[in-house]
Amino acid sequence: MKEKGLLIVLSGPSGVGKGTVRKALFSQPDTKFEYSISMTTRKPREGEVDGVDYFFKERAEFERLIEQGKLLEYAEYVGNYYGTPVDYVRETLETGKDVFLEIEVQGAKQVREKFPDGLFIFLAPPSLSELESRITNRGTEDEQLIKNRMETARKEIELMNLYDYVVENDKIENACEKIKAIVVAEHCRTTRVAPIYKKILEAE
Amino acid sequence: MKEKGLLIVLSGPSGVGKGTVRKALFSQPDTKFEYSISMTTRKPREGEVDGVDYFFKERAEFERLIEQGKLLEYAEYVGNYYGTPVDYVRETLETGKDVFLEIEVQGAKQVREKFPDGLFIFLAPPSLSELESRITNRGTEDEQLIKNRMETARKEIELMNLYDYVVENDKIENACEKIKAIVVAEHCRTTRVAPIYKKILEAE
Repeated sequence: MKEKGLLIVLSGPSGVGKGTVRKALFSQPDTKFEYSISMTTRKPREGEVDGVDYFFKERAEFERLIEQGKLLEYAEYVGNYYGTPVDYVRETLETGKDVFLEIEVQGAKQVREKFPDGLFIFLAPPSLSELESRITNRGTEDEQLIKNRMETARKEIELMNLYDYVVENDKIENACEKIKAIVVAEHCRTTRVAPIYKKILEAE
Repeated sequence: MKEKGLLIVLSGPSGVGKGTVRKALFSQPDTKFEYSISMTTRKPREGEVDGVDYFFKERAEFERLIEQGKLLEYAEYVGNYYGTPVDYVRETLETGKDVFLEIEVQGAKQVREKFPDGLFIFLAPPSLSELESRITNRGTEDEQLIKNRMETARKEIELMNLYDYVVENDKIENACEKIKAIVVAEHCRTTRVAPIYKKILEAE
């Protein structure tokens, strides 16, 4: 009974610790998803290996791949392109393996349009729930600082609504455990399981 | 940041092993949900304790409780009533704790009507996925037996669609792990988390 793999997208505001959580996840022996390596036009840094850390490409080639629709998502940061090659993602999903992307929020929006069935996880800063005690202990905190934090929080909550799940990055291990639980649970969703059973019956 | 508890409903076809899985879950130290004790009019068996195994009630009282709407779900089996007292469920959920019910499929339907936001888990017999190899190895199996199994499977798949998740009871430990992962994941769903954050901001 073979199921197509899940596309797991981890994203969240910059500085929330997406990369750290992703590395921790992939250092655990029981993590069963495949990491999709990004493509970039920036130069390799000391020790970085092509095909391991990134697929390093020339600018002209990256732009040609964009035109050919070979990127699931891409963005430009400080003059360099970063993106996710779509073929690896599609081929891996077809083999039944789950694919894991760790990308910026702009990229996540692009992926949602192409893979509405993907599993979108928003990594939230712990400051969001710390906000509660700040608001409660108002007198002891700087008023303008609270207002700024609340404004940021409002934007983060807006972003959140594009995702299926929210995982607070209070501790890396907690965040990893929750992400793994979400993937296990998602494989048990009736909307994913029932069609497989139906297929078995119809195949007879 | 307090969230209302989740109502977790474990159900499935009779004989699938709901009781065994529930007992295994509650024997684990990291299981954090509260078990809702059923009410019954059957006589206590040797060693059964009122308020531990069941709440034992007289028939007249049970019927009065039904009339008063004090049962979340109930059914009659071999001349005895079995049901779930609603007050315990509501009060425990209010304190933020998750409540776990292990009930028959008829009862689960009744609960779905009253708690559409509940977490409904269908425990599926492993025979459902074994069916695939049976169909494939057709020649070696009794034709009528396969037909009967397929008919049962069809009904089980119909039932399944009323649930959010399907957990195959291939091994008790696997089923327990999956149920726990589903509960963790459900607490991370954006539809549950975002409103809590919003409330914090609005409360200021």
